[in-house]
Amino acid sequence: MIVFDMNETTLDLAPVRAAVDSVAPDAGGFTVFFQKLLQLSMSVSTTGMDFVAFSSLARHAFDAVVAAAGRRASDDEWAQVAEGFGQLEAYPDVVGGLERLRAAGHQTMALTNSEQAGVEAQCESAGLTHLFDHIVSVEAVSTYKPGPAPYLHAAQIAGVSPDRMWMVACHDWDLAGARAVGLNTAFIARPKMSYAPTYPAADLHVNDFGALADHLT
Amino acid sequence: MIVFDMNETTLDLAPVRAAVDSVAPDAGGFTVFFQKLLQLSMSVSTTGMDFVAFSSLARHAFDAVVAAAGRRASDDEWAQVAEGFGQLEAYPDVVGGLERLRAAGHQTMALTNSEQAGVEAQCESAGLTHLFDHIVSVEAVSTYKPGPAPYLHAAQIAGVSPDRMWMVACHDWDLAGARAVGLNTAFIARPKMSYAPTYPAADLHVNDFGALADHLT
Repeated sequence: MIVFDMNETTLDLAPVRAAVDSVAPDAGGFTVFFQKLLQLSMSVSTTGMDFVAFSSLARHAFDAVVAAAGRRASDDEWAQVAEGFGQLEAYPDVVGGLERLRAAGHQTMALTNSEQAGVEAQCESAGLTHLFDHIVSVEAVSTYKPGPAPYLHAAQIAGVSPDRMWMVACHDWDLAGARAVGLNTAFIARPKMSYAPTYPAADLHVNDFGALADHLT
Repeated sequence: MIVFDMNETTLDLAPVRAAVDSVAPDAGGFTVFFQKLLQLSMSVSTTGMDFVAFSSLARHAFDAVVAAAGRRASDDEWAQVAEGFGQLEAYPDVVGGLERLRAAGHQTMALTNSEQAGVEAQCESAGLTHLFDHIVSVEAVSTYKPGPAPYLHAAQIAGVSPDRMWMVACHDWDLAGARAVGLNTAFIARPKMSYAPTYPAADLHVNDFGALADHLT
């Protein structure tokens, strides 16, 4: 079983980037927004708060970025960002890589911090639905990656032990969480992404899904 | 007992901001660096990794920001950032506010994710050492804020129950962690900082230490 992160790893966030940068270009824009979103999701786990839906966290992160630019975000501006999440295209290497991995007998799963309805819509829009055996949101376990529950939930769905699974992501923190509960890990070097030596090394470092298929088929 | 966050809340990170922005101005610079540093510290808790020193996390965050700008950070460039952390000045309202709070009988504590040696040097350099009854690093409990251990450690040092304490910070996530274990919370609205509605509301929202003293004396 090969488990794929979606946002930034499989799906190019360009439409979200454009929407955020158009509102808050000087405050670090999209990069700060996505980091703030991650910060909020991690805080929910770290402080023991009740689970908050990803789309709510995303709105709060957007509001914070626009506030840092000295303005107040309007509902229309937020709507553009939210629409962006529904219009993502897969990176050009994704479909071919997934097809090769599946042809070689691998099962595949999407595992995302986004909500279930959101990721299903994303897969439909990007033409990826038929390329995953399972499309899974962390909503099912009310815990965000990189906490242990989402990866263990994935293993339970797959019906295999974590050490027979691969987690594939362009986020070092996601792979660190997967590794902590025993999965093998593959880092996809999407633009501007690096792997912090804070974390245990990933088993594979590759540039795209094609190179991943070269290694795993 | 009033507990104060140091970096960004009490100490102006301007020298660190200048050092990071001079190396990576286009990648979001300092803002992205500081968020990445927070991300790393939260990941250590969330994934159950062994504790990694704050200065190591800061180096890794800096390397990631420079890598996102398409370069590799040199040791000299990092040295400028590290030196910056040792040259911070208190915001103009800090000394007066702390003096008023202490004159009114409050005990005071610095509680920081930075290392013990680092925060002691920062307090000396900024002329704040005599204004704190305790200067405490999370190193003592090998857990970063906003995990529960640092705040509980602060309560133990203070010898009072958490509900008799205040946590003061310009970071919503820090106050959320303090609130989760029972402290009262005061948000200081430093430049570009907002309070995400993801978190339980803070008990006080004030613009600076002077306004804090107005409320607590």
